[in-house]
Amino acid sequence: MEKLASLASAVLCLSVVLCSYGTVGGAYLKYNTGSGVVEGKLNVHLVPHSHDDVGWLKTIDQYYVGSNNSIQGACVENVLDSVVEALQRNPNRRFVFAEMAFFERWWTEQSVETQEIVRKLVDAGQFEFINGGWCMHDEATCHYIDMIDQTTLGHGLIKEHFNKTPRAGWQIDPFGHSAVQAYLLGARIDYQDREKRKNDKSLEVIWRASKNFGSASQIFANAFPVHYSPPTGFRFEVNDESSMPVQDNPLLYDYNVEQRVFDFINAAKNQANVTRTKHIMWTMGEDFQYQYAESWFKQMDKLIHYVNKDGQVNALYSTPSIYTDAKNAENGSWPLKTDDYFPYADRANSYWTGFFTSRPALKRYVRMLSGYYLAARQLEFFAGKRSNGPNTYSLGDALGIVQHHDAVTGTAKQHTTNDYAKRLAIGASEAEAVVNTALTCLASSKSRDQCTVTSFTFSQCQLLNVSFCPPTEEDIPEGKSLVIVAYNPLGWNRTDVIKIPVNDANLVVQDSSGNTIEAQFVGLDNVTANLRNFYTRAYLGLSPKRVPKYWLLFQASVPPLGWNTYFISKASGKGKSRTGFLSTVDSPQNDTIEIGPGNLKMSFSLTSGQLKRIYNTKTEVDLPIQQSYLWYGSISNNSDGQASGAYIFRPNGSPPTITSRKVPLKVIRGPLVDEVHQQFNSWIYQVTRLYRDKEHAEIEFTIGPIPLEDGIGKEVITRMTANMATDKVFYTDSNGRDFLKRVRDYRADWSLTVTQPVAGNYYPSWFDRATGGASIEDGERMLYDDSRGVGEPLNESVNKACEGLTVRGNYYVSINQLGAGARWRRTTGQEVYSPFILAFTHEKLEDWTASHLTKATAIDPNYGLPLNVALITLQELDNGSVLLRLAHLYEADEDAEYSKLAKVQLKKMFPGKTIKGVKEMSLSANQEKSEMKRMTWKVEGDSGKEPTPVRGGPVKSSTLVVELGPMEIRTFLLKF
Amino acid sequence: MEKLASLASAVLCLSVVLCSYGTVGGAYLKYNTGSGVVEGKLNVHLVPHSHDDVGWLKTIDQYYVGSNNSIQGACVENVLDSVVEALQRNPNRRFVFAEMAFFERWWTEQSVETQEIVRKLVDAGQFEFINGGWCMHDEATCHYIDMIDQTTLGHGLIKEHFNKTPRAGWQIDPFGHSAVQAYLLGARIDYQDREKRKNDKSLEVIWRASKNFGSASQIFANAFPVHYSPPTGFRFEVNDESSMPVQDNPLLYDYNVEQRVFDFINAAKNQANVTRTKHIMWTMGEDFQYQYAESWFKQMDKLIHYVNKDGQVNALYSTPSIYTDAKNAENGSWPLKTDDYFPYADRANSYWTGFFTSRPALKRYVRMLSGYYLAARQLEFFAGKRSNGPNTYSLGDALGIVQHHDAVTGTAKQHTTNDYAKRLAIGASEAEAVVNTALTCLASSKSRDQCTVTSFTFSQCQLLNVSFCPPTEEDIPEGKSLVIVAYNPLGWNRTDVIKIPVNDANLVVQDSSGNTIEAQFVGLDNVTANLRNFYTRAYLGLSPKRVPKYWLLFQASVPPLGWNTYFISKASGKGKSRTGFLSTVDSPQNDTIEIGPGNLKMSFSLTSGQLKRIYNTKTEVDLPIQQSYLWYGSISNNSDGQASGAYIFRPNGSPPTITSRKVPLKVIRGPLVDEVHQQFNSWIYQVTRLYRDKEHAEIEFTIGPIPLEDGIGKEVITRMTANMATDKVFYTDSNGRDFLKRVRDYRADWSLTVTQPVAGNYYPSWFDRATGGASIEDGERMLYDDSRGVGEPLNESVNKACEGLTVRGNYYVSINQLGAGARWRRTTGQEVYSPFILAFTHEKLEDWTASHLTKATAIDPNYGLPLNVALITLQELDNGSVLLRLAHLYEADEDAEYSKLAKVQLKKMFPGKTIKGVKEMSLSANQEKSEMKRMTWKVEGDSGKEPTPVRGGPVKSSTLVVELGPMEIRTFLLKF
Repeated sequence: MEKLASLASAVLCLSVVLCSYGTVGGAYLKYNTGSGVVEGKLNVHLVPHSHDDVGWLKTIDQYYVGSNNSIQGACVENVLDSVVEALQRNPNRRFVFAEMAFFERWWTEQSVETQEIVRKLVDAGQFEFINGGWCMHDEATCHYIDMIDQTTLGHGLIKEHFNKTPRAGWQIDPFGHSAVQAYLLGARIDYQDREKRKNDKSLEVIWRASKNFGSASQIFANAFPVHYSPPTGFRFEVNDESSMPVQDNPLLYDYNVEQRVFDFINAAKNQANVTRTKHIMWTMGEDFQYQYAESWFKQMDKLIHYVNKDGQVNALYSTPSIYTDAKNAENGSWPLKTDDYFPYADRANSYWTGFFTSRPALKRYVRMLSGYYLAARQLEFFAGKRSNGPNTYSLGDALGIVQHHDAVTGTAKQHTTNDYAKRLAIGASEAEAVVNTALTCLASSKSRDQCTVTSFTFSQCQLLNVSFCPPTEEDIPEGKSLVIVAYNPLGWNRTDVIKIPVNDANLVVQDSSGNTIEAQFVGLDNVTANLRNFYTRAYLGLSPKRVPKYWLLFQASVPPLGWNTYFISKASGKGKSRTGFLSTVDSPQNDTIEIGPGNLKMSFSLTSGQLKRIYNTKTEVDLPIQQSYLWYGSISNNSDGQASGAYIFRPNGSPPTITSRKVPLKVIRGPLVDEVHQQFNSWIYQVTRLYRDKEHAEIEFTIGPIPLEDGIGKEVITRMTANMATDKVFYTDSNGRDFLKRVRDYRADWSLTVTQPVAGNYYPSWFDRATGGASIEDGERMLYDDSRGVGEPLNESVNKACEGLTVRGNYYVSINQLGAGARWRRTTGQEVYSPFILAFTHEKLEDWTASHLTKATAIDPNYGLPLNVALITLQELDNGSVLLRLAHLYEADEDAEYSKLAKVQLKKMFPGKTIKGVKEMSLSANQEKSEMKRMTWKVEGDSGKEPTPVRGGPVKSSTLVVELGPMEIRTFLLKF
Repeated sequence: MEKLASLASAVLCLSVVLCSYGTVGGAYLKYNTGSGVVEGKLNVHLVPHSHDDVGWLKTIDQYYVGSNNSIQGACVENVLDSVVEALQRNPNRRFVFAEMAFFERWWTEQSVETQEIVRKLVDAGQFEFINGGWCMHDEATCHYIDMIDQTTLGHGLIKEHFNKTPRAGWQIDPFGHSAVQAYLLGARIDYQDREKRKNDKSLEVIWRASKNFGSASQIFANAFPVHYSPPTGFRFEVNDESSMPVQDNPLLYDYNVEQRVFDFINAAKNQANVTRTKHIMWTMGEDFQYQYAESWFKQMDKLIHYVNKDGQVNALYSTPSIYTDAKNAENGSWPLKTDDYFPYADRANSYWTGFFTSRPALKRYVRMLSGYYLAARQLEFFAGKRSNGPNTYSLGDALGIVQHHDAVTGTAKQHTTNDYAKRLAIGASEAEAVVNTALTCLASSKSRDQCTVTSFTFSQCQLLNVSFCPPTEEDIPEGKSLVIVAYNPLGWNRTDVIKIPVNDANLVVQDSSGNTIEAQFVGLDNVTANLRNFYTRAYLGLSPKRVPKYWLLFQASVPPLGWNTYFISKASGKGKSRTGFLSTVDSPQNDTIEIGPGNLKMSFSLTSGQLKRIYNTKTEVDLPIQQSYLWYGSISNNSDGQASGAYIFRPNGSPPTITSRKVPLKVIRGPLVDEVHQQFNSWIYQVTRLYRDKEHAEIEFTIGPIPLEDGIGKEVITRMTANMATDKVFYTDSNGRDFLKRVRDYRADWSLTVTQPVAGNYYPSWFDRATGGASIEDGERMLYDDSRGVGEPLNESVNKACEGLTVRGNYYVSINQLGAGARWRRTTGQEVYSPFILAFTHEKLEDWTASHLTKATAIDPNYGLPLNVALITLQELDNGSVLLRLAHLYEADEDAEYSKLAKVQLKKMFPGKTIKGVKEMSLSANQEKSEMKRMTWKVEGDSGKEPTPVRGGPVKSSTLVVELGPMEIRTFLLKF
């Protein structure tokens, strides 16, 4: 033991002598950097960090390896290499790191010895993961399911390799903060908000973002007094131009220790003036800093040494966790903050509300694949995950990356955006293979081991929205049928309309039992035909010979987490005759046209071509309403230099231009759907659809290419005008989940000076993708850059075809009695998020039915989830355990029936499997729920009389029933 | 032993695993970087280096600590910190470092543990010192004594701490190369020269720069095919924008190993096409690179690994030493190069001949202090070096720094130049204290221990050139005398004129024996009086009440390495009467005025005021000659963008403008000196002096402030026109030592295309400072920058007085019979370099003589060095040994009498001391001469019939006589 001890001390000694050094009288000096928190002094917490965007001006991999430096000098590999070196030189040094997509790249390249060093640094608290998501996601344009998924991905890696759980959130760059975001954070807040909070020392607050949970989900939140950089003059990146290094060698010229200590204390006192308690935090970093970490740490070593020698304040290496613990230990009371931090403005005319809508095509692609990823993981689990072959990881990885606050936001450069799209496409292709394989195995009723997919393969159609789907367009071979397997990722049974392009109106649709079912053919419109031709040529290099003649529509009904099979066959032969209804084009006689085969009706004026009224014959709600398209001219060049751009919405101050007052209109009718086609102008086309069995209107817009010949960037909106007495109040969602009350020209937290009556009233909103809403709006493309770094105007074009992008999308309109809207919003919302997955093949109907389960479910056939609960994650992990995440969809008091405790029976969800263990986990599944600790914080003026939120109780191993209170999300790890 | 061995292997293992890493299939990969030279393949020697200017755009200390980065991002502390880290990560990595002024700063700040690590890296050959001077000195504007001193300083540090001797020279940045520079080098050569050498593969040569020594002093010299940077695309500085890193992780996008290997091989083959043998060198570095060394080494690790895996060429970490050994081992023949590499042009109109004269005030200051430093070290030794108290180190340090190729060259920014001047001034002050103390002790005949200087202190006058010298100007106190001690740093007895400003013409000058000697008073001219007033106010903040009325001149005779004392007293009292001659102002009657109290005469035209003729009544040489001042207009803005600037002399192509054709002239006569004062224009004043006992004319010019109102930068020259038949041939010196033949519009090594008939014919020359010569010339200041980096026009002004600088200087003209010029040039040149050191005090003559040795020498009173030998170093080292350096001043065949073997008797040089040991050393004193090895090189067409140069033989310990052949410099370490 004697020898062992001496060896250990030698190693210790080595690490000490390497770490702190410097000069006294020109000779070596060991710096004293070991100060912890000192009671009674102002403690300056130095938090070394590097903010590494997961793609922005460069792609993620260019940032990682440090290529393309002419765009931006940035190399995350350098950051991690050099930080690990620097931390070894002094055991007091600390560093926090957030973006796991980068860390994963670095980690896999390291030797086992380096990995061991890093593990030790993590265990010693020198290297701390904060936030720990795959990226630092945006908070306006990300869906809450994506936010959870990407955080789970990052937290899983940390758990696997370090057995750690990040304690602190760190959302320092996103442009505003959402209510759903529930971590400690420090970040961008509105410039007016910041000023007020500095004055009353309320930059740090207790944030109760959830109406439902109140203090039970509160966090301690810190907004920085300036940005996430150090105080001026304390940035020490290699080659930094702005800061003077501490020159403490008296033998050299420009010795400046006293001056720099003075500067430090001065900056600390200034910050202390706007901060409560004796603790302030300095974020010692910036974008892609620490490329040579020693350049920072050497200076911080010196500053800590000399500042503490001076003694007026106490400087220490710290992390957000240490800082928060110190704040908490002071046991003071904090201001309360509710709602969220949107919209964000960094100065008077610079409202960061443009990115709510920037790059709508990317936003839609992300949204579509988000739902697909959810379904693909379900199928991967049901069919049994394979250790080799395709899997869903790369799609999860791509989706994790694209949640980044410069990705889905639409604020990255075009080449980076292309990189995101490429990653998504590659991930989607692999997931498609997973889905095809899984459906093949499930439908053929074979187990994972038995099922080797060789004989045939399903195909899927990602371009259905532009009517491109080869398997449905092809001539159906003689004697065979087009087999369509529809998978329903929802936990409840659903009926929806399937719509495929075909070339023949003489087709018969049969269900899984062979019964012929109702169908409707709608002639393909020219706008879609043109889109199809243009985009298949531009992106696939294909010029299909013919454009499909029709959309074929029929209703499909699919059990929860199950599938159903439909067969499309030629009408001729074997007694089949056409059953489909060939839609008629209406030639209206009256000035008012009414459409709607079901309860919901709409009426249009034939004179103006405009919508006049929506009404529901069942609920008798009747609302006069107008709808129009308009555009704001963007500001390119004005006195304050703020143009409209990817980040910033800066309309030119004039009222928006209306596209047309008289709209050509075409009406198509049929048994399943009525359509109204409206050509608003040469580049805005809209189809309004009323389905027989849906209580909402589906509005499909096709916008683009926006003409730029006039040199004016256009922010396109659609506006619905109804005579409702709303008194400035409206509601928007938070990340597709909570609904927040908004009041025009008003902020709850400070007295708002209105400088931008339009841009300052936009809030993030979810439709078929993230967008911005003030009433109803969809904005697109601008011609100018807004000087927030991206350095490119938003002017997406198709490939190299030099034509502006055309964007097609949907939104949905429903009218309900007061208090009855939630049910449609919540449940239908979930259906929009998780549409059917359709897989196609050609086979003889008889052969197929003989060898396949045509309609089945992976869960108990007699079971379905309650309509207020969504299965938001079902995923088999690499270690064989299964991640299950259930979300209650309703807020408290939102709906008389559904805003109640819901129950899910796990036994019925996994029939044929024995659940050996159920562990309830934290949201990101990296910690058992029972081990989670929440800090206690006092809130100013807190009555303590807050009602207790409804929450589900523990899951009993006997019953295995999961209860969920309103808005509750519960995460489990299951063992079978 | 078992345990110890296992520990060692564990440590070894650690160092190996840390060093090379990378990815294979996205996972860790150990790179193979251990390739040495491979026979039969093209070997690409990668030589990692950082070229760190010892001051340029920033000061040396700003470069060291990395402050002032807004001017240039550069921090040498980072370079050394990170290189040491990076070398430890892989034992195959190597790095060469040149500038010891930087290394010394870093080294003294390191812990003993880090120092030990560095020693091991040096011993292992991973970290190699090349060149190893204090700086990388300039080769045009440095005096050879300064070049030796600064190299000795650097080599001494390397010897002391690492016991190493740099094997390779590394002069990569100086703007041309001098014949005196005798190391391996690779560097800037003329663009035409480079092209030709690339074509005939003669970039690498055997350079015999010395006419005297021929092959005995030859070196292998390598000029790089481009610059001292890597081939395009292989620069890997952190944040580098130009190069693509090797991306070898197949899991990330943009994998490019094949492409980068292809690029590498391609660049290697291109270079092989212009290089002999199978070895090429890539200089992997640039100015202030390796600020994060890992960024370079990581890429080079990968390149070596993948290039060698490819196998077409062999890449290896190397150094100039390894490269040279490899070249030498090939045993081929090499082209021969003689002469030097001046002037240097980097393109057609860009002759780097401007810096020969840039910042003439700094050049003069350096030159003056160089001589002072030589003398101060002598006195420091003679009086006994003190372990505490002032010493000459800081002056040596400052002079070492200022030899840098952006310092004395005048090509640094103004603030950096100020820093150089400040360092020199501080060093000079300390050396002045050394001199005062030493003279006090020596004159009072006290030993080092006995001599505590308290009662009085000498003062010295650094501003004598503008007639500012308080001790001589002051009224001499009643009964006291002004005591002047003159020290002679030369090895031979000399007589020279002492000239001091006084306020009284009624003074008596007495020698050390009390004999009154001849004196002459010359009234102070207005130009000097104005200069004095302006500069004492601007730089000293003093406004002396009165301007001295006279210059007092008298002849002093001082023994070699000894001193003599002169007393100036008021003529009144004690039988003293004025003996000085008050100079007369001549009012000539004839048109031709002849002046000269001695053999040398000059005649001037009264009509034009111009010089007409020089003649010597003794030698009867008679030369009609004209002298005039002219200026070239600088080019500021022309089609090729090349302005005249600090580096580049770019006259505008017109003939130079003559200042005046009729010059006002004033003649002053006296027994010791005749003076002709000429006012060439309002800003050029000249005094020509002919001394009775000197065989040359002293021409003192006062130029400035150059008027800039016309917006034209002016390159001022003086031109002497004589009708000598020179056939384009002239001679200029090399660093004040060898003389080289120059032929107008001609280069020996290539067929010159003349693009700049003026600038392309200028060569570096030495007068009272470094300057440029084509005939005789002195150039000053320009208004534009020449775009070679310094980024400032050369427009020096006095302090903040917003007035251009005035520069005063001297040059000397002698006429001799053919073959008789060397004696004057060599011996008088040495006297100009080493003027008397004058120290002043006031004391009663009787008291002084009673207690002091008034005239004495530190060497044997009956001995002096031969007139062809100069004592260029006599310095007591910290370890007590004494550095002695003797230089033969004549080239072979230069003088009938003096170009012969000379002998120096050491016993007589150090009387009263016992020489216990004499070790002959290399020039920089870092190695015993007997241990030095020279490589053998074959030269193309070498006849082998070269005459053997005359060299001194070994020093016998019995006789202790040092022999020196022509141009020989011998260096010894003596022990007493």
